[in-house]
Amino acid sequence: MADLVYGKTSREIREEIRSGINVAPTAGLAPGVVQTNLAILPQSEAFDFLLFCQRNPKPCPLIEVLEAGEVEARISAPKSDIRRDLPLYRIYEYGSMSAEVEDISEYWKEDFVSFLLGCSFSFESALINNGIPLRHYQEGKNVSMFITNLETEPAGAFSGPMVVSMRAIPRDSIVRAVQVTSRFPSVHGAPIHIGDPQAIGIHDINNPDFGDVTALEGDEVPVFWACGVTPQSIAMKSRPPIMITHAPGHMFLTDIKDEELSLI
Amino acid sequence: MADLVYGKTSREIREEIRSGINVAPTAGLAPGVVQTNLAILPQSEAFDFLLFCQRNPKPCPLIEVLEAGEVEARISAPKSDIRRDLPLYRIYEYGSMSAEVEDISEYWKEDFVSFLLGCSFSFESALINNGIPLRHYQEGKNVSMFITNLETEPAGAFSGPMVVSMRAIPRDSIVRAVQVTSRFPSVHGAPIHIGDPQAIGIHDINNPDFGDVTALEGDEVPVFWACGVTPQSIAMKSRPPIMITHAPGHMFLTDIKDEELSLI
Repeated sequence: MADLVYGKTSREIREEIRSGINVAPTAGLAPGVVQTNLAILPQSEAFDFLLFCQRNPKPCPLIEVLEAGEVEARISAPKSDIRRDLPLYRIYEYGSMSAEVEDISEYWKEDFVSFLLGCSFSFESALINNGIPLRHYQEGKNVSMFITNLETEPAGAFSGPMVVSMRAIPRDSIVRAVQVTSRFPSVHGAPIHIGDPQAIGIHDINNPDFGDVTALEGDEVPVFWACGVTPQSIAMKSRPPIMITHAPGHMFLTDIKDEELSLI
Repeated sequence: MADLVYGKTSREIREEIRSGINVAPTAGLAPGVVQTNLAILPQSEAFDFLLFCQRNPKPCPLIEVLEAGEVEARISAPKSDIRRDLPLYRIYEYGSMSAEVEDISEYWKEDFVSFLLGCSFSFESALINNGIPLRHYQEGKNVSMFITNLETEPAGAFSGPMVVSMRAIPRDSIVRAVQVTSRFPSVHGAPIHIGDPQAIGIHDINNPDFGDVTALEGDEVPVFWACGVTPQSIAMKSRPPIMITHAPGHMFLTDIKDEELSLI
């Protein structure tokens, strides 16, 4: 897919999406550019959710938070419009999905606060660039995701278990996988667990809570990273009157390059 | 000073402070333990201030944020009481200091949100542990601090220039100084500028805006780090009805070890 859009900037792709000519998952678009998860909540929930993210930076790495009513991600994507620049959105009312739409303008309220959260595409690039193969890409599947027994730090109305993604990493690549993902704390960062699914409450590695199964082969070890599904699933649990998110895989493209997020 | 308290835990020192038998600057207490700046604001200002910190992590590195009315820093210092565990506080009303007190219980309100912000003691330990001498310690002075022409990212009512601290680093130690402080993003992290004070709006290195002069000697280069005075000075500019801070040098001792904050 990437070759189709090679040479297009994030802004150009956002404009295509805005004009409705690109309604598809964003994986592979603008390689090397930071894509984000989206969570929109009313201002009444915003302090607690921001605090929840501050207390749980691994599952909830903030790339940018827009002020109430703001629709332009001024810092990470100037000239963007958060209401129209994602290919597909989901509307949740009191924790239940009520609609899936390509434009949220008609739902927009002046007290909406938009949270852009780092996504695993960025650290997966770091792994691939370091020669660490990712089986779910090779097999054209979704990554396996699991609800763990690791509790997040609660904040206000928000609390619950951490969701993790699992990647099958060859044993001789584990050290390097820790090193290269540690450089990117704002896109989930270092793994949260290596090697023993039971220890974090995962009883069947072949039965993920979300995504597809990734069978372990040969010398592969299951390595677990905090997953951006966590904040969404936890916000939903608190059943806010309204919450808007991206549809899975339909992310927001910023103008930031992955490497600009590296700590060192 | 450290040898007087060698062997005491942070909690024991906090309890001494709480009981009133230790009202002195905290530098050197509980070596290797994270000490923090304190800023307390009413809930009405808290979202914007939290957002300001999220957008400006180098000058405003959050260690913990307490929920409205909470007085225990549950995560970083269990059993603490933020109203009594600092040796000295300052009360500001509409941006002007109205009192300096050892206990803020009588000022406390149920809507107060307490922000604990990383302080330079932690990364200075990293420099000293790596054999990089710090002249202001050797000379028993305060570090030099300057208001720059670097604008912070505004958030709500909060905006203004970044304040930096300057350390005179021998030229052959600059690379190492960048490396070792980069490991500690939650206590100001890597320098924000090396070598040319004019370039960041500092016209006279011998005339700091806060702290003492540090004369440059021989092959020393001025290296600048984002400074925790920034959030205080910026919050003050917005003239909130009430704001409470630590008195300079009279910090909050957490139970976290400096090394626990290192990213890698």
